Amino acid sequence: MDEDGRSDDGSTPTAAQAACFEAGIKFGSLYHQFAGTPVSVESAASLARAMEEAIENQPGCRSVSVAVREEELAAALEAGPASYTELTGRFLEVEIAVEHAGVAVLARMEMADGYPLMRLVSVDDVGG
Amino acid sequence: MDEDGRSDDGSTPTAAQAACFEAGIKFGSLYHQFAGTPVSVESAASLARAMEEAIENQPGCRSVSVAVREEELAAALEAGPASYTELTGRFLEVEIAVEHAGVAVLARMEMADGYPLMRLVSVDDVGG
Amino acid sequence: MDEDGRSDDGSTPTAAQAACFEAGIKFGSLYHQFAGTPVSVESAASLARAMEEAIENQPGCRSVSVAVREEELAAALEAGPASYTELTGRFLEVEIAVEHAGVAVLARMEMADGYPLMRLVSVDDVGG
Amino acid sequence: MDEDGRSDDGSTPTAAQAACFEAGIKFGSLYHQFAGTPVSVESAASLARAMEEAIENQPGCRSVSVAVREEELAAALEAGPASYTELTGRFLEVEIAVEHAGVAVLARMEMADGYPLMRLVSVDDVGG
Repeated sequence: MDEDGRSDDGSTPTAAQAACFEAGIKFGSLYHQFAGTPVSVESAASLARAMEEAIENQPGCRSVSVAVREEELAAALEAGPASYTELTGRFLEVEIAVEHAGVAVLARMEMADGYPLMRLVSVDDVGG
Repeated sequence: MDEDGRSDDGSTPTAAQAACFEAGIKFGSLYHQFAGTPVSVESAASLARAMEEAIENQPGCRSVSVAVREEELAAALEAGPASYTELTGRFLEVEIAVEHAGVAVLARMEMADGYPLMRLVSVDDVGG
Repeated sequence: MDEDGRSDDGSTPTAAQAACFEAGIKFGSLYHQFAGTPVSVESAASLARAMEEAIENQPGCRSVSVAVREEELAAALEAGPASYTELTGRFLEVEIAVEHAGVAVLARMEMADGYPLMRLVSVDDVGG
Repeated sequence: MDEDGRSDDGSTPTAAQAACFEAGIKFGSLYHQFAGTPVSVESAASLARAMEEAIENQPGCRSVSVAVREEELAAALEAGPASYTELTGRFLEVEIAVEHAGVAVLARMEMADGYPLMRLVSVDDVGG
């Protein structure tokens, strides 16, 4: 076994790796299902709630927390002629908790250098 | 002017036609933004609310009413191994009211012969 | 019959209005199915082709022409750190021809005052 | 270091775990961006090509291979009245190769027990 707990052929995925793959699926799903949705300050809350509950349906998804960055959204709307815009990553902060094959994964999307970055926060054995 | 109120070249769109075009945009937007969303009986209400409020942001959209056909959804889920499925037209009834250029349009999506059918219900001058 | 060719109750949709509704559906579908897709100068052509062929499947859709505004896309990519971005209306010019119930409709999406505008171009009886 | 190469707090993600997270993002993105797209036997090839090139834009994505299961699609279309349907997992076989932080990940989506299953195939250190 090497340092990632893989067998000699170095390629069979571990339970922790599979759990991280599952967490990534949830993030990609959330982003690309809802990106482009018409959103305003008034409708942001219902969209965030729907995003949470939709992705929580997926296998192994323990919780999804979506916060719309309302100041950023309001500023973007003031800069243009319309009262709504299309949902994109710079208006979102997302945290997703997954448990798969006895491993708990926490992942987050937040802005970094002006771009939305999805990243793993923690990976923990929780038995199973 | 011919019977559709168009000028002699027969092709300049009328206000009523433009309003119907706007109503169609709303239907296509709603359907293709949200089709494929993971949905369960428990999460159907928040998704329906988000769909309504998202599309109501679009120009000239007076109101959107989305009802999830919960019996149909529950039956589909019982037939399979998962507790959720992907949103598609057979789980939806939608009514959209648009007002554009002094014309009010009501349109509806509902099942017909096993397929979701989008259709105009009424087109009325309301002044403007 | 009033100037839009509607009967006395003023609300039964005409064939031309139904055709315009169909054209709107195609525009909303195209936009919200594909908005948010990762796109680069290199991948723009395959995405445009897929958008055309996908929407041409819809009932009554005679032809769809999607042009990616490559200069606009290249400029947006030069301004940021990534080699791709998300598809949105300012990178697109779209023309859709629909024939429904003996009426031919041509509609177009193009930039106006910095925003993508979908509009009817012509509505013509073609018999049927 | 425990068997997954993590430090004593048991939670800092490894490079291999981060690479698996990235692979998951690509799968979720691909699926939820394109699910619901109108597809026929004739338009399947252009859609598959656009899916490949779109997701290959994402960071660390080495290659994407999308095959439409044309027999399954043809059978579904014969069973219904329309010449097209909505893209969903049962019409797809997808393989995605990611390289991130010196780790190569191969993942696949294929049918299992009547449902599309996304899974890791291999995870290999490739230096970096």
